[in-house]
Amino acid sequence: MLFMVQMDVHVPPHVSSESFDQLKTTEKARAQQLQQSGKWRHLWRVAGRYSNVSIFDVADAAELHDIMTSLPLFPHMTVEVTALCQHPSAIENQA
Amino acid sequence: MLFMVQMDVHVPPHVSSESFDQLKTTEKARAQQLQQSGKWRHLWRVAGRYSNVSIFDVADAAELHDIMTSLPLFPHMTVEVTALCQHPSAIENQA
Amino acid sequence: MLFMVQMDVHVPPHVSSESFDQLKTTEKARAQQLQQSGKWRHLWRVAGRYSNVSIFDVADAAELHDIMTSLPLFPHMTVEVTALCQHPSAIENQA
Amino acid sequence: MLFMVQMDVHVPPHVSSESFDQLKTTEKARAQQLQQSGKWRHLWRVAGRYSNVSIFDVADAAELHDIMTSLPLFPHMTVEVTALCQHPSAIENQA
Amino acid sequence: MLFMVQMDVHVPPHVSSESFDQLKTTEKARAQQLQQSGKWRHLWRVAGRYSNVSIFDVADAAELHDIMTSLPLFPHMTVEVTALCQHPSAIENQA
Amino acid sequence: MLFMVQMDVHVPPHVSSESFDQLKTTEKARAQQLQQSGKWRHLWRVAGRYSNVSIFDVADAAELHDIMTSLPLFPHMTVEVTALCQHPSAIENQA
Amino acid sequence: MLFMVQMDVHVPPHVSSESFDQLKTTEKARAQQLQQSGKWRHLWRVAGRYSNVSIFDVADAAELHDIMTSLPLFPHMTVEVTALCQHPSAIENQA
Amino acid sequence: MLFMVQMDVHVPPHVSSESFDQLKTTEKARAQQLQQSGKWRHLWRVAGRYSNVSIFDVADAAELHDIMTSLPLFPHMTVEVTALCQHPSAIENQA
Amino acid sequence: MLFMVQMDVHVPPHVSSESFDQLKTTEKARAQQLQQSGKWRHLWRVAGRYSNVSIFDVADAAELHDIMTSLPLFPHMTVEVTALCQHPSAIENQA
Amino acid sequence: MLFMVQMDVHVPPHVSSESFDQLKTTEKARAQQLQQSGKWRHLWRVAGRYSNVSIFDVADAAELHDIMTSLPLFPHMTVEVTALCQHPSAIENQA
Repeated sequence: MLFMVQMDVHVPPHVSSESFDQLKTTEKARAQQLQQSGKWRHLWRVAGRYSNVSIFDVADAAELHDIMTSLPLFPHMTVEVTALCQHPSAIENQA
Repeated sequence: MLFMVQMDVHVPPHVSSESFDQLKTTEKARAQQLQQSGKWRHLWRVAGRYSNVSIFDVADAAELHDIMTSLPLFPHMTVEVTALCQHPSAIENQA
Repeated sequence: MLFMVQMDVHVPPHVSSESFDQLKTTEKARAQQLQQSGKWRHLWRVAGRYSNVSIFDVADAAELHDIMTSLPLFPHMTVEVTALCQHPSAIENQA
Repeated sequence: MLFMVQMDVHVPPHVSSESFDQLKTTEKARAQQLQQSGKWRHLWRVAGRYSNVSIFDVADAAELHDIMTSLPLFPHMTVEVTALCQHPSAIENQA
Repeated sequence: MLFMVQMDVHVPPHVSSESFDQLKTTEKARAQQLQQSGKWRHLWRVAGRYSNVSIFDVADAAELHDIMTSLPLFPHMTVEVTALCQHPSAIENQA
Repeated sequence: MLFMVQMDVHVPPHVSSESFDQLKTTEKARAQQLQQSGKWRHLWRVAGRYSNVSIFDVADAAELHDIMTSLPLFPHMTVEVTALCQHPSAIENQA
Repeated sequence: MLFMVQMDVHVPPHVSSESFDQLKTTEKARAQQLQQSGKWRHLWRVAGRYSNVSIFDVADAAELHDIMTSLPLFPHMTVEVTALCQHPSAIENQA
Repeated sequence: MLFMVQMDVHVPPHVSSESFDQLKTTEKARAQQLQQSGKWRHLWRVAGRYSNVSIFDVADAAELHDIMTSLPLFPHMTVEVTALCQHPSAIENQA
Repeated sequence: MLFMVQMDVHVPPHVSSESFDQLKTTEKARAQQLQQSGKWRHLWRVAGRYSNVSIFDVADAAELHDIMTSLPLFPHMTVEVTALCQHPSAIENQA
Repeated sequence: MLFMVQMDVHVPPHVSSESFDQLKTTEKARAQQLQQSGKWRHLWRVAGRYSNVSIFDVADAAELHDIMTSLPLFPHMTVEVTALCQHPSAIENQA
């Protein structure tokens, strides 16, 4: 199943920049692992903001939830989830 | 350049269902033509709503505007546009 | 998969009350058929409003979309969809 | 009486993760006790967010309030309450 | 049970002022009947707007819903419902 | 003059629970004094939230302001004020 | 008592421009009469919008309501009302 | 030129009440100086909130900006600015 | 004085496309005349929407208002106005 | 490509005014360097607020993102990005 997830990261005011840099490093590793597995199908930066637009291809909503809460930056994100499906005008199966 | 476009279609109250069905048919043909050209890279239905999430790959904002206003349903849409770029954690060039 | 769907119905200003009553009758029949099939698991009225809160148990987002667009009142609804999953504190499997 | 309650939990920035884990443990015990009593009829996780959708079956609004304020995480939640009633198209008494 | 209900009336553009005046007359009669029954406990005009703030004292949410949908102006209202209960600092039982 | 005031209390993160409990005790005493004076006509708890709906009967807006800023929890509240007046359909003088 | 009132006028789509011009003429006469009486203390145009910011000095909220509903354009306005009072830093009595 | 400015003051959580009282004293002196100069034409308290509605009469937007940023409480305010002009129905020149 | 104006045009449902095309032609002529006069300093299309972002350089708010209400499409626009001034980091006088 | 960027700066509560003044000094130098390069085409202060409206002329969204995240105040900003293009009524090429 496909989900669009929009993540806005809020830099935590009480965290040192060293700790936050470390969080970002582990976040990047986790994000790349999930992309290689095929679960995190697309990952785009929103221009000019600390935000991304992502497409996940997962078995179900439970798997999406497990993935999201496994992200090191999850406690510092505002998250919007949108369930997607095949569009009748799409020329190839995207779902 | 990549743009995410979110389109919500509003069924016009004064248009007969025959006219609206015809609009949808020409919309579908135009959408497929744009997908075949590679400009309209992804097109997903938002589950349960008359809305879609789309990714466009265009030369610039002017081309995006020309494409959007060429859609037969454009006058009946609420449109949100988000400029995207390559994410540093993405494992392949998506921009 | 479970989805919460919140539907707000807007009485169409151009439709006669006879036509609208007929729409509601076919809507009710369709809603009951979907409940009997087990797809539409819960259906509650929001007190004081022409709105409902529903829980759907469907194969995937595509099936949810087909169900929603099959409802006679769908063109007159504002719809919010929320993907649900099993809660770790729930005492029984609800997903 | 039935109420839908939507709870969004905000991780408190000044609380240590040990204290917060303990809060979550007592929250889970309280939630399960309330489910076993039949007061907390349904509890679903919102996919990808630290939020839930719940259905409570209580004597009245006062009992709902007492339950909500008895939750250990209540001070860290944003709460939306919606009063529900039997829907005329529902095939069984859900209220 | 007590509910606060906020009603905003929208003058329907397609209804003649004669028809709308008649609607308001029947609305007033119904409102006064409900006040005399003790169900509609308080009714205040919001200064400068075609809106009211009301307190209803009803058996449950179902009775509130039946009352609201029995109002002649119900199809022309935006309605917000808030469930109330006894406040611990209140000096008399208001619930 | 009548005003509806909606107060949402935000638990201050930097205040110890002892200090906050003391604040609540003095708040309660002040609220009861104002109710006994007839200025604070109604006080209801919003079910499931740290919020209330209140009706004040005061000489003018200045008196309302003095009352509100005399509340010990005032610095921790979000406040909405709505000026009310007699409704033409009300069966008794409520203003 | 002082109230700030913000009025946004919506040109009604079904009204001919002749009828609407007549409405505006009677609105202007009524507005000037109320200004001369001292009830409508200030009247400013919001630059670039069909909106105004007004200050009314009335006996109470009931008088404000009577004034607002006596305006010919009232059915075509969105209205926001804010109750004002003397500011402790103001150098002269404005309330 | 006339501007309406709405200021909402947020009590800073990290500032001692002594420091904040001193801020308010200097704010009051500055506000009165600006009123005496004729730049700050009107200053009203919003009833029940730590907010004001003000009318400034300044040479241009730059002077408004300099005035606003000279206020000691400026860093603790949310500010809305609305450019005003003479209303065609106003009986005297207010711009 | 400089103002940013954001205009969103709403295609009127009751106007024939011939009438609307004529409106757009006169709108374009008026917009070009105002640009040539130096009053309408910048005019950009918002990509993918029937909206523009404009910068006006006018004597005062009254002149801005006269310009805006002289636009043939003004009755079909939602307008946001923002007063601008020289930024201390700007390398040339833009105000 | 042209982008409008609206930046609202939030004074960080935990940063000393000395550190923040230093941040602003480096921000100003960076802003002037980008203006001299022609990338930051326009920079206006929003009157009465710690906000600006800017126009950037960049190769693509990636360059915009690099510029924004290079600003010393970027972690303390709320940012809105709008993609612009040539308007058909503009009298000169602004894109």
